[in-house]
Amino acid sequence: MHTFEELSAQFSEKFKTDHFPQEPASLYEPNRYFLGMGGKRVRPVLCLMANELFDEIVPDAWNVATAIELFHNFTLIHDDIMDQAPLRRGLETVHQKYGISTALLAGDVMLVAAYEYLNKVSTQHIVRIMRLFNKTAREVCEGQQLDMDFEKKNGVDFDAYLNMINLKTSVLLASSLQMGALLGGTGVRNQQIIYEFGRKIGLAFQVQDDFLDAFGNPEKFGKLVGGDIKSNKKTFLLIHALQVASEGQKKRLKELYTSTSEHKVEEVLSIFKDCKVDEWAKALKEKYMQEAFQHLDDIAVVSKRKEPLKELALYLLQRES
Amino acid sequence: MHTFEELSAQFSEKFKTDHFPQEPASLYEPNRYFLGMGGKRVRPVLCLMANELFDEIVPDAWNVATAIELFHNFTLIHDDIMDQAPLRRGLETVHQKYGISTALLAGDVMLVAAYEYLNKVSTQHIVRIMRLFNKTAREVCEGQQLDMDFEKKNGVDFDAYLNMINLKTSVLLASSLQMGALLGGTGVRNQQIIYEFGRKIGLAFQVQDDFLDAFGNPEKFGKLVGGDIKSNKKTFLLIHALQVASEGQKKRLKELYTSTSEHKVEEVLSIFKDCKVDEWAKALKEKYMQEAFQHLDDIAVVSKRKEPLKELALYLLQRES
Repeated sequence: MHTFEELSAQFSEKFKTDHFPQEPASLYEPNRYFLGMGGKRVRPVLCLMANELFDEIVPDAWNVATAIELFHNFTLIHDDIMDQAPLRRGLETVHQKYGISTALLAGDVMLVAAYEYLNKVSTQHIVRIMRLFNKTAREVCEGQQLDMDFEKKNGVDFDAYLNMINLKTSVLLASSLQMGALLGGTGVRNQQIIYEFGRKIGLAFQVQDDFLDAFGNPEKFGKLVGGDIKSNKKTFLLIHALQVASEGQKKRLKELYTSTSEHKVEEVLSIFKDCKVDEWAKALKEKYMQEAFQHLDDIAVVSKRKEPLKELALYLLQRES
Repeated sequence: MHTFEELSAQFSEKFKTDHFPQEPASLYEPNRYFLGMGGKRVRPVLCLMANELFDEIVPDAWNVATAIELFHNFTLIHDDIMDQAPLRRGLETVHQKYGISTALLAGDVMLVAAYEYLNKVSTQHIVRIMRLFNKTAREVCEGQQLDMDFEKKNGVDFDAYLNMINLKTSVLLASSLQMGALLGGTGVRNQQIIYEFGRKIGLAFQVQDDFLDAFGNPEKFGKLVGGDIKSNKKTFLLIHALQVASEGQKKRLKELYTSTSEHKVEEVLSIFKDCKVDEWAKALKEKYMQEAFQHLDDIAVVSKRKEPLKELALYLLQRES
């Protein structure tokens, strides 16, 4: 059994290999640049850990983990185009550095490269892995489209928002785990439970992310607090606030979200606090976490093997183990 | 054995099925819109014909043909974004009608749908089909990037241009044939020859397309003559003209290709004719055609079975059979 740190280091080392030919450099250099930005490689490690939950890590798992990470990077390159984001991890995004057309193609070829790794999976598993991978890929695209739709809508229903977050963020974590579990040789029941575990971890993580953006300690959080509010982003906090606030507060919130007032962040946060959105978000994150851990408990394998996954979840959700 | 018309009709009928779920309509409606524009479906039919060259059409061939056509449409949606094309087949392009972000995602999910069909291929063939499909997909992306690079370059070498056209246009025709041949049960040698047949047909077709744009009969061609010249597009004709023209002609061509003069098309065509670019292009198309038909002859199967492919090639290359 390995810890997150060990698997993350092992995967990062293997992932450093060049996934692309040298030429044409105008296409592949942007891919190398983007992958060189690094990352925590959480999704591939979830795949490896879920394999190791049931058995020693098989060669297939490394290929699937690589495909997952390439897929994730493909979505980031294309999302950055759609969001017109100039920076990621403090570095220029691909479209900012190389132009939109090249970023579009670099993303496309990154997705094809992901399928090249999937095609190395053994005959025994390839069809089931591909089916799950394709379903997830489709859902992630759906989530991104729903996210863009929401940004244009006036009111957003909580369940619709939850569905969007689930597709955009959670299903890839969930299916990374399920693919690993499948390769580890466990049955459909355990695969479904670990999928749900991943899904709930994803939801808890997103609630936390929204919470920290509004109420976090800027030094610990590493970003400017209130960024989501400044950019009028719909978040768990805003959706909930608009449900529970008084008519007057709702009216003011809607005004604030179309203004560029200097005191915008301050005033929105004050309404959030009056509506106890902070407490609500903490409780919601706690609920998803508890559900996730219940799923982990329910997996039919000795508890000792679950420790690394539990630690990773606690690390992602900023809890001491 | 079936003719092109028969297979095209059969494929078009099957292809009309909905490849996408209803929701989110904001993502899938653009896909339905684009596929609804129709098309000659040449590539999937090449796959079916190459299967039937060796044996009765197998169910796998329909799935691969569908994947090929979805892939081709994915490239068109993304190419239209990169080319900032407002129209295709006289209808609004996806990004023009639905916005760039949605067109980007609609293309992405179209590519995923292609892989969903590939994943239906029987275990016996899936890995080899996927390998060829992935290689081709990568090459088509490379071709598109090289095309964009060329548009920015001053001089372009003929061989480099040929390589770009080969990747952007020919390899998909070639590998559609190879995949069909593989599914038809023939060996690697025949697969390689049919791949070369497709590649040469693609090159001959592109030379013809460039020729007709400059010298075609506007009524027969269906587009305005001189469109490539007006938009300063690099073509077989221009690349060759810049190689054989006198210094004075070269200078004038370069001037014309940066001007918006009223007589631009007329004057460029006059230089092309002086340099005998028209005769050269006809001969080049003829050369590729002859090479293609030599490859077709070389395929180890009774000649009678080759008739439909020969007719399709003659039809594409506007020759009476």
